[in-house]
Amino acid sequence: MAFSGSRRDFLKAAAAGAAGLALKTATGRTARAEDANGRPPNIVVIFTDDLGWGDIGAFGHPTIRTPNLDRMIWEGQKWTSFYVGASVCTPSRAALMTGRYPIRSGMCSDDRRVLFPNSEGGLPQSELTIAGALKEADYATACIGKWHLGHHLPEFLPTQHGFDYYFGIPYSNDMDARPPEGMTHREIVLEPESEHFHVPLMRDEEIIERPAEQETITKRYTEETVDFIREHQDEPFFVYLAHSMPHVPLFRSEDFVGVSRAGRYGDVVEEIDWSVGQVMETLEELDLAENTLVLFTSDNGPWNLLRDYMLHAGLPGPLRGGKGTTWEGGVRVPTVFWWPGTIEPGVVMEMGAAMDMLPTFAALAGVELPDDRVYDGYDLSPVLRGEGSSPRDSFIYYRGEQIYAARKGSYKAHFITQGAYGGGGPREEHDRPLLYNLDIDPPEREDMAEEHPEIIAEIEEMVEQHKEGVEPVENQLIK
Amino acid sequence: MAFSGSRRDFLKAAAAGAAGLALKTATGRTARAEDANGRPPNIVVIFTDDLGWGDIGAFGHPTIRTPNLDRMIWEGQKWTSFYVGASVCTPSRAALMTGRYPIRSGMCSDDRRVLFPNSEGGLPQSELTIAGALKEADYATACIGKWHLGHHLPEFLPTQHGFDYYFGIPYSNDMDARPPEGMTHREIVLEPESEHFHVPLMRDEEIIERPAEQETITKRYTEETVDFIREHQDEPFFVYLAHSMPHVPLFRSEDFVGVSRAGRYGDVVEEIDWSVGQVMETLEELDLAENTLVLFTSDNGPWNLLRDYMLHAGLPGPLRGGKGTTWEGGVRVPTVFWWPGTIEPGVVMEMGAAMDMLPTFAALAGVELPDDRVYDGYDLSPVLRGEGSSPRDSFIYYRGEQIYAARKGSYKAHFITQGAYGGGGPREEHDRPLLYNLDIDPPEREDMAEEHPEIIAEIEEMVEQHKEGVEPVENQLIK
Repeated sequence: MAFSGSRRDFLKAAAAGAAGLALKTATGRTARAEDANGRPPNIVVIFTDDLGWGDIGAFGHPTIRTPNLDRMIWEGQKWTSFYVGASVCTPSRAALMTGRYPIRSGMCSDDRRVLFPNSEGGLPQSELTIAGALKEADYATACIGKWHLGHHLPEFLPTQHGFDYYFGIPYSNDMDARPPEGMTHREIVLEPESEHFHVPLMRDEEIIERPAEQETITKRYTEETVDFIREHQDEPFFVYLAHSMPHVPLFRSEDFVGVSRAGRYGDVVEEIDWSVGQVMETLEELDLAENTLVLFTSDNGPWNLLRDYMLHAGLPGPLRGGKGTTWEGGVRVPTVFWWPGTIEPGVVMEMGAAMDMLPTFAALAGVELPDDRVYDGYDLSPVLRGEGSSPRDSFIYYRGEQIYAARKGSYKAHFITQGAYGGGGPREEHDRPLLYNLDIDPPEREDMAEEHPEIIAEIEEMVEQHKEGVEPVENQLIK
Repeated sequence: MAFSGSRRDFLKAAAAGAAGLALKTATGRTARAEDANGRPPNIVVIFTDDLGWGDIGAFGHPTIRTPNLDRMIWEGQKWTSFYVGASVCTPSRAALMTGRYPIRSGMCSDDRRVLFPNSEGGLPQSELTIAGALKEADYATACIGKWHLGHHLPEFLPTQHGFDYYFGIPYSNDMDARPPEGMTHREIVLEPESEHFHVPLMRDEEIIERPAEQETITKRYTEETVDFIREHQDEPFFVYLAHSMPHVPLFRSEDFVGVSRAGRYGDVVEEIDWSVGQVMETLEELDLAENTLVLFTSDNGPWNLLRDYMLHAGLPGPLRGGKGTTWEGGVRVPTVFWWPGTIEPGVVMEMGAAMDMLPTFAALAGVELPDDRVYDGYDLSPVLRGEGSSPRDSFIYYRGEQIYAARKGSYKAHFITQGAYGGGGPREEHDRPLLYNLDIDPPEREDMAEEHPEIIAEIEEMVEQHKEGVEPVENQLIK
């Protein structure tokens, strides 16, 4: 599958190769997705921070150049209706890792949006992560990048949640801010220097650098990822590459200063695109691309609600709202799956969610998940193979511990709406929920509540059922 | 270049062909873009009506499926900063055809936005159209679709403006409305039936059907185009396929009823995507693809400002405003160039404009344009070949006869802002113009006027120079 060169050469090659193309015959498939040597597929999850739905070329950004992601999309599956479990960092990552709404693990709160440097809570040991599940199938596992699921005790760290290796910062890159005399917080965010953020960089359970040099962080995460893949090329591996960018303050390496038309934010996203290219090219060079599923997505929408910060934030494309809200721009994220030769290239408009990754990856690896808990995810692997439609038909939009909205099929009902971070409007409870048809009206403009009371009733019933299945647990964010 | 089959097969073919790929050696080039037989390239312009910047998959629509346009974009050049000469129909088309701002031909007005059925004006015979220019190089020329540059006298029709053949409706498909007893105009638009619009369908200079059966109009335009290409495959041809969709009222053929997740509007755009596929496949089947430049674009932004009509309108992607306004969403349109083997595939973020087509096509055909008039277009052919950057660095935003805004490089100054069609805000003249950096801030949110008075001064000077070069002419829209 290796192919390097210009897109024009690629297209010529396609024309040249078309004549001699032999169609692969269908073969029987075992429960897990083994290759010829009985090895399950490698899995790489590239998780960005605050990247908006509209920040990639093929998702409609006019001035950010993302040739590697565009190729990944062309060769893979672009998911246009893929959700994260929350519109801020910690609960979103908890949902990804556990396959469960964060309300179930105590990883969301009405009082503190996320974990902060002084937080004493974290992801409980009782939770099973993707890494923990894949260890059952003897995967080599690495977490490279931002964790944000607890750092106060070692038991909260990646290394005690199924990851053999950790390299990264434990929480957001704007935390531990130390504005020098005469500078405001706003100024140190908009004119970023690493020394103004006392963020630790960790290897496994040790702090190896503080403040972390953030100018080189995307590059170093990428190198660590490529090295890990090379070292573990002979066994199944799972790499969770969780970029700390493009969260503010925006850092990029020297090679990417001023490369983008879209300013500093564009530079940062173009460096992430480069990083994606490095991962794809490494897999191709090692002849592993056809046995590796790569997922690219984001933890929540862009932080686009505050004046002054807007030019340091991404775009939600045609969607409404951004990070922190339960409008689509907050929780719908640009998503691509790539697995040359196995995946059915195309655009998937059905729903998917980060919570679906645990069951999907477990199915691919042939791991049976313990049945002692509720999972909110579905196995999407048939959709990836082009063999079925998505089993996900609904989504619950939490803000903190409260349900603000819910989607069933094309329709989304908002029970509560609210802006975030000082922008986008006050909290409003709706006696009659707002109702939007997201397929026909992606920007949530035309309230259809009056026409469809029966759909609202159906959605309300679904929400009640969901609530009944949620057990109270200790809250980890207010500890 | 012909390749049919799934994208997966295509990608496999690329991998298979990569090994044997021979790079084409550079050859000398004559002034015009001749093939081995000395024949200049065929040109097909596909011009849609009210299609928004964000209405194509690869421009970021979440639920409209456009596999043919996505392929065209992948194999061709996607232009993300391509403008039309006005944000409504008649002046936009005049700009495309003449390579000149419509103020120069009298085809824009402060009093009547466009030509109406009772209008007595039209594009003057003194204007040179693309078709007229290409006749100099013996192109066979056809206009298929919506004209909207005059119909009261034969001298305004396509057949007297350089086109050998015309098949289509002479003005917008919502004109000549005839609501039956008891129905409002709103109702006949939102529940479309052909019989409620007394629109004529013409062949050459004759009306052949009235009211035009609009349910089959996209299909019939496509068939006419394919037939014309087949008939003229042995000589250079120019086809201007100007779809009357997706302008309201929205019609699609039976095959496309209910196919899209995005409702009726989605159905209509998916039929246009099918039509694009028919054109590409015909060119490939006739072995003409490598000698044909295909341009796909729109006449202005989506008609998204009126409540009730929104679900029958497109999306401007991340851009602000829509049809009728001088915000980016009104005049920036989704644009793709396709010319396998010649075009450099990729994304062009530099500026281009519909007015550049006359000089570009003239250069490709080796036609020298008369020097008795001012042209506002540039030859973009070096950009298409990947051999240079765009010569266009500025754009003037007219609304009617007035200049509302102007762009130079990344910066756009708004002298006047105004919504359109009853939505989007009142007319406002700005003592200090609003200033946006469109590359960093595509949605025009953060006014930078205070920081950059020198840029505003530079733009104002450019506008003054432009004004000095505009000669008064007879207005054609108020006749």
